[in-house]
Amino acid sequence: MEIKVIAFDADDTLWVNEPYFRKTEERFYALLEGYLTTHNLERELLKTEIDNLTLYGYGVKGFILSMIETALKVSDKNITAEIVEKIIRMGKELLEEPIELLDDVETVLSALKPKYRLVVATKGDLLDQERKLRKSGLTHYFHHIEIMSEKGEADYLKLIKHLDIKPEEFLMVGNSLKSDVLPVIKIGGHGIHIPYHTTWAHEVVDTNFEHENFKSVKQVLEVLEHV
Amino acid sequence: MEIKVIAFDADDTLWVNEPYFRKTEERFYALLEGYLTTHNLERELLKTEIDNLTLYGYGVKGFILSMIETALKVSDKNITAEIVEKIIRMGKELLEEPIELLDDVETVLSALKPKYRLVVATKGDLLDQERKLRKSGLTHYFHHIEIMSEKGEADYLKLIKHLDIKPEEFLMVGNSLKSDVLPVIKIGGHGIHIPYHTTWAHEVVDTNFEHENFKSVKQVLEVLEHV
Repeated sequence: MEIKVIAFDADDTLWVNEPYFRKTEERFYALLEGYLTTHNLERELLKTEIDNLTLYGYGVKGFILSMIETALKVSDKNITAEIVEKIIRMGKELLEEPIELLDDVETVLSALKPKYRLVVATKGDLLDQERKLRKSGLTHYFHHIEIMSEKGEADYLKLIKHLDIKPEEFLMVGNSLKSDVLPVIKIGGHGIHIPYHTTWAHEVVDTNFEHENFKSVKQVLEVLEHV
Repeated sequence: MEIKVIAFDADDTLWVNEPYFRKTEERFYALLEGYLTTHNLERELLKTEIDNLTLYGYGVKGFILSMIETALKVSDKNITAEIVEKIIRMGKELLEEPIELLDDVETVLSALKPKYRLVVATKGDLLDQERKLRKSGLTHYFHHIEIMSEKGEADYLKLIKHLDIKPEEFLMVGNSLKSDVLPVIKIGGHGIHIPYHTTWAHEVVDTNFEHENFKSVKQVLEVLEHV
């Protein structure tokens, strides 16, 4: 294969992310344990988040707003202003979590950089992702950071056009089969899936996917064996 | 001048935006009139927004969160859950406002499109700006939409590098002297300022700016006289 551009998903591919969301969710459930069980709160929060996706998109700010909305809903508008304040503070803390690189990410980027154009392709808020990239110390490996409002086939086609390459010259590496791999394979690109131990429920797909342009690896170091 | 790319700011340059924010702010002040005068609420909200800019960036979601935070603050955490709910609803309504094109925008874009690469360069949330562009019916005039987390000199240099042109081949058109024009002129590009009747306090600068690469026009139609 003649790959020209390798795009890396950011959260849970380059650095730890979902565990921080989980930690925030746990704090949120604890805050509202008087109203619903954790299990039901989890379901309500996910429902609110998914309902709000079209309007808010991905990222922490929408997540904070969805937590507040869920709290209003499950309490039948009985929560105090203190609880709202705590949710806002938890959200700000989430935005300020440290960046913890996943194992061997830097080794892999160093090895790939001389041979490929590397980009970050991520959903979420531009400012937040830029800040995380800066804090990660990885900025110099990447040509640029591409924020995508959604990661569907049409979005990847737009990105590939914008990168001025053919689909078969594009490789996407990421932890979400649904967002990082399947749509890319569908349009003729290449995908490498690196599962992460924690995945947001909305990103989970059931599959035993097989395709000649697709590889599933256990850790990012193995990417080097496939390019 | 040999302009290759003309970038248009979006909000209040292509379409009405700030008046919708103002309308939402008025509703917010009315909601909290029991706590502070409109004048003081205005000051508190602006202060909260500016304090949150580094963390939230620009856009409606950060604005909603800042309204909630301001309400908690000015009421000394005495607001009811109903007020929080109303603020969230107002925010969602703001995200769903119709797109009203400014006069002659389409005429100007039609005339420029055959000769230049046109892009949208805007702050704010990607998803929201993409939705507005789609609703505006202007998508086909633009090569792509560039979301910038900030509009400073370094950000424009990055954009120009990304567009693969020289600064002197870049013209930015927008309603904010501070964000759309001054930094572009500073790095050797061209700027056309089209003042809009309503400007966010944080974007206002006092100036009688003059420069050979700079024009101030009264309406977008005049852009055609300067390229």
